[in-house]
Amino acid sequence: MNQEAIFHMSHGAYAYALGPHHALIKLRAKRGDLKSVHMVHEDRFELPGSYATQELNYAGSDEFYDYFTAVVETRTRKLRYRFLLDNGPEQYWYGERALSNIADFAGWFQLAYLPNRDLFVIPEWAKSAVVYQIFPDRFQNGNPDNDPEGVRPWGELPTPHTFFGGDLQGILDRLPYLENLGVNLIYMTPIFLSPSTHKYDTADYYAIDPMFGDVETLKRLVENAHVRGIRVMLDAVFNHCGAEFPPFQDVLAKGEASEYADWFHIHSFPVDMQEVNYETFANHVASMPKLRTENPNVRDYLLDVAEFWVKEVGIDGWRLDVANEVDHAFWRAFRDRVREANPETLIIGEVWHDSSPWLQGDQFDGVMNYLFRDAVIEFFAKRTISADRFDAMLTKTRMMYKRQANFMMFNLLGSHDTARFLTICNGREERMRLAVVFQMTYVGIPEVYYGDEVGMVGENDPDCRRTMIWEEEKQNRELFRLHQQLISVRKAHPALQTGLYRAVDKDALHNLYGFVRETENESIYILLNNGSGNHWVSLPEGVSGRDLLTDRVYSGTFDLESYGFRILLLSGGTV
Amino acid sequence: MNQEAIFHMSHGAYAYALGPHHALIKLRAKRGDLKSVHMVHEDRFELPGSYATQELNYAGSDEFYDYFTAVVETRTRKLRYRFLLDNGPEQYWYGERALSNIADFAGWFQLAYLPNRDLFVIPEWAKSAVVYQIFPDRFQNGNPDNDPEGVRPWGELPTPHTFFGGDLQGILDRLPYLENLGVNLIYMTPIFLSPSTHKYDTADYYAIDPMFGDVETLKRLVENAHVRGIRVMLDAVFNHCGAEFPPFQDVLAKGEASEYADWFHIHSFPVDMQEVNYETFANHVASMPKLRTENPNVRDYLLDVAEFWVKEVGIDGWRLDVANEVDHAFWRAFRDRVREANPETLIIGEVWHDSSPWLQGDQFDGVMNYLFRDAVIEFFAKRTISADRFDAMLTKTRMMYKRQANFMMFNLLGSHDTARFLTICNGREERMRLAVVFQMTYVGIPEVYYGDEVGMVGENDPDCRRTMIWEEEKQNRELFRLHQQLISVRKAHPALQTGLYRAVDKDALHNLYGFVRETENESIYILLNNGSGNHWVSLPEGVSGRDLLTDRVYSGTFDLESYGFRILLLSGGTV
Repeated sequence: MNQEAIFHMSHGAYAYALGPHHALIKLRAKRGDLKSVHMVHEDRFELPGSYATQELNYAGSDEFYDYFTAVVETRTRKLRYRFLLDNGPEQYWYGERALSNIADFAGWFQLAYLPNRDLFVIPEWAKSAVVYQIFPDRFQNGNPDNDPEGVRPWGELPTPHTFFGGDLQGILDRLPYLENLGVNLIYMTPIFLSPSTHKYDTADYYAIDPMFGDVETLKRLVENAHVRGIRVMLDAVFNHCGAEFPPFQDVLAKGEASEYADWFHIHSFPVDMQEVNYETFANHVASMPKLRTENPNVRDYLLDVAEFWVKEVGIDGWRLDVANEVDHAFWRAFRDRVREANPETLIIGEVWHDSSPWLQGDQFDGVMNYLFRDAVIEFFAKRTISADRFDAMLTKTRMMYKRQANFMMFNLLGSHDTARFLTICNGREERMRLAVVFQMTYVGIPEVYYGDEVGMVGENDPDCRRTMIWEEEKQNRELFRLHQQLISVRKAHPALQTGLYRAVDKDALHNLYGFVRETENESIYILLNNGSGNHWVSLPEGVSGRDLLTDRVYSGTFDLESYGFRILLLSGGTV
Repeated sequence: MNQEAIFHMSHGAYAYALGPHHALIKLRAKRGDLKSVHMVHEDRFELPGSYATQELNYAGSDEFYDYFTAVVETRTRKLRYRFLLDNGPEQYWYGERALSNIADFAGWFQLAYLPNRDLFVIPEWAKSAVVYQIFPDRFQNGNPDNDPEGVRPWGELPTPHTFFGGDLQGILDRLPYLENLGVNLIYMTPIFLSPSTHKYDTADYYAIDPMFGDVETLKRLVENAHVRGIRVMLDAVFNHCGAEFPPFQDVLAKGEASEYADWFHIHSFPVDMQEVNYETFANHVASMPKLRTENPNVRDYLLDVAEFWVKEVGIDGWRLDVANEVDHAFWRAFRDRVREANPETLIIGEVWHDSSPWLQGDQFDGVMNYLFRDAVIEFFAKRTISADRFDAMLTKTRMMYKRQANFMMFNLLGSHDTARFLTICNGREERMRLAVVFQMTYVGIPEVYYGDEVGMVGENDPDCRRTMIWEEEKQNRELFRLHQQLISVRKAHPALQTGLYRAVDKDALHNLYGFVRETENESIYILLNNGSGNHWVSLPEGVSGRDLLTDRVYSGTFDLESYGFRILLLSGGTV
């Protein structure tokens, strides 16, 4: 046994509450090393009758490790436990104190109490969400009267500073399109007053930029969306503001005497936008002064903003820009405030790396899952890794987080900050199709970047922010229909939303990837042939699978063509 | 290289801020596996000139792992980094993405930003603290007028229910003794109104139990202690109250109609103290109903209590009872509130196991370090482990926590909840002496349980709660003087308070344990011969050490007798 590879901690994603009386316990070992893992657990105060033994289930592997998990019931919410590790020749007890042949020497891990207040609660509605990301200036111009000066013709290639006239009325007008596509959540990049086209430099957190409409337009949009079963999220840019934000202008004008002097991180006075003698987003971005969220006045101001849009307009969630550079204390207060305003508010952070510190249940529900995108690009778009390595990358990320967070991850193929997925595929649509099938059947909330569903292309910003293609003859209708079908399937099947995930086929040679999503009631087997010739696939004796896209029923051994896929609702057993 | 043993995470005790522009980065590898660890780091947005290479220092070993740490300076507070691991034959880059021969494949770990608001700030004064724990009923009867009915004669052996008449006036009267001993912080177990002798079942959080005095007595005690440079901590029992707490009495009387019905975890009404149909401390302890701290009314009530005693009486800290069973959100609010009342308030939790979840900087400063006690008992008192294993146990615990927390741990040999240390030593004083030398020179705040310094003995509760021995002829004056000397040395030498810790001698065969505490200015070499015959110890050529207890100067090779110890202030170099 590779003893040094054994890992558990009695907190974080390795031991946490799933509910008031249920905890998930996870253990990591060297890949292939352990035959079985059991745990014994009991009430921490040795309540008679509380002692129990339970096997952990194999939950997946990454490059180096196997993961095992168990859901433990604890009536008193006060748990202590230790593991029994078995690799055949050796057996060890593993507790907080030691790895030992003797149970008592190993000691106990303690999950001292499962307080309701610390429970990681995710919005029930979000489990079946499929989100559509809109960059408002580029989606639809619904009201030419509010176009800013110098609007360029729809379809022209964008520069970083081009305006095209897209607006909230345009999104409202296109709700039938979105409903037809099947998405049930819209996330819009910022819409508050700002001089830029992207609006990540807010001038007024309480004003809709007039080029997009006004509060009434937003209310109408939200109301009409809700009528169609579509929810709406806004973008909270709270790490920094724009230089036109009045408090910053006040500091520019009055220097140290400004009542807002402590709203920013000013290195020296007077403030100089040429020299940039203050902290900004990234480095020396004069137009984006960093907000001093540790200042209670700044905190309260921004929390008021967050609450206002939830209460006043009834938005359903916030996406938090540059979320990893704002203090945790702020985000905890943010969660408390917006959840008090509406307990069903979804909170998604922008974090491109390991997001564990924000996903413990006290801050965000999920993040923009760029680690998912990295894996999908390598496997499907660039075909640089094997199915086994793909599965390992996914598992590593999934195992970083609590189950609740994994269900809430925004699984994106692209965004306004990246090249479009079809472009990364070099236009090879068959690759993108597989990626979309995967996205729509994987753990987490699929996020469609506007236009990807009709085959839009684009390199990095600004090219990925082209105007939406509406002429059907210029749209890839087949890709649209695939999205439509997949979204419909996802929404209809709880197993695809919150079912457990289990890799079945991850052949290192053939690039065939197959996995199961399953609940107690249904088991769905997804097969993806990532383009290395045809493959034979076999279902066990007595098991058949109805393809949820074609309704065709498969059993026994069948052929899966290159770049082919199946989404099989199994009956008669599982694989 | 044992790749599976490599561990780092870009949060928790593996990557955290020491100050606004300094982060500590830690890496774990298989013991003996790596020749060196370097890291490269730069500003996350690739600010020109920010790229740097830095070697991590070896920081210690536990049973399975070596630990390496570096303190990294980051001007922009936005860090990304990866490691270069070298074990001789192999070199690997290690980042969030992978362990790889190719730097870019490894990716980066990200410490996105070091916000001031999230900084782990410990009270400056506490770095030089030596704490004395008092069980008030048993320390000194200063005012016989407030004795409860049926007080037993001082010196009689206690039962769980005996009262002896000790009180706050008694502690006040004994301040000269404590000042003479040298301790500069008193921690009293609960003093609020309660029917029991231990008072962990509070009836009134705003009233001093009259058998101990009143608010004025407490104020006088705190004022007089402060004059002598001694600070005072109280015990916050917020997990549960006593059955006599009026809100619980109200629920007993009015059942579900009580306005306090949601202050507790009641399973069914009417509340029945025989059946115990409500959650309690441990299980079915009728007299200790668990408080529902998730209820904002309960939370605010208890936070008001916490603030009141800080503001009204000027106490310097809170020790938090059963801290691991109260929600994290509560403790975060607790820290905010008491730190706002007095930014120098020390917060110590009672947690007997891995306390990481509470020691991230947002809740407690330290905990009652029972893991320290476990190691000290095994090595010094019971002599069941080698010096190497002792060092491993200490290192494992130290590496769990951030540096700030390690400085604030209450390193105790015993408490009101354990047998006394000398009893665990079977009365072998020479063992206890070594343990005390270790306690006074180790990382963290030494905690003396009243009477241990004069050789008091006692088995588990109630025997460990005997009345203090004041007759000098019955006191172990030699042990007292050792405490006195060691406390004096500790307070005089910053290296013993916040110096780095480095094990030097940890012979698995001879039970000789030697370590260095060092700052930039001083290096102190502590040698402990844990009783396996005499040993020769050698200082390097040119290095000499002045014993801080005897003033004798050592150099070259010298003899360390069985159960002997030296505390050598080195000059001319280090060991």
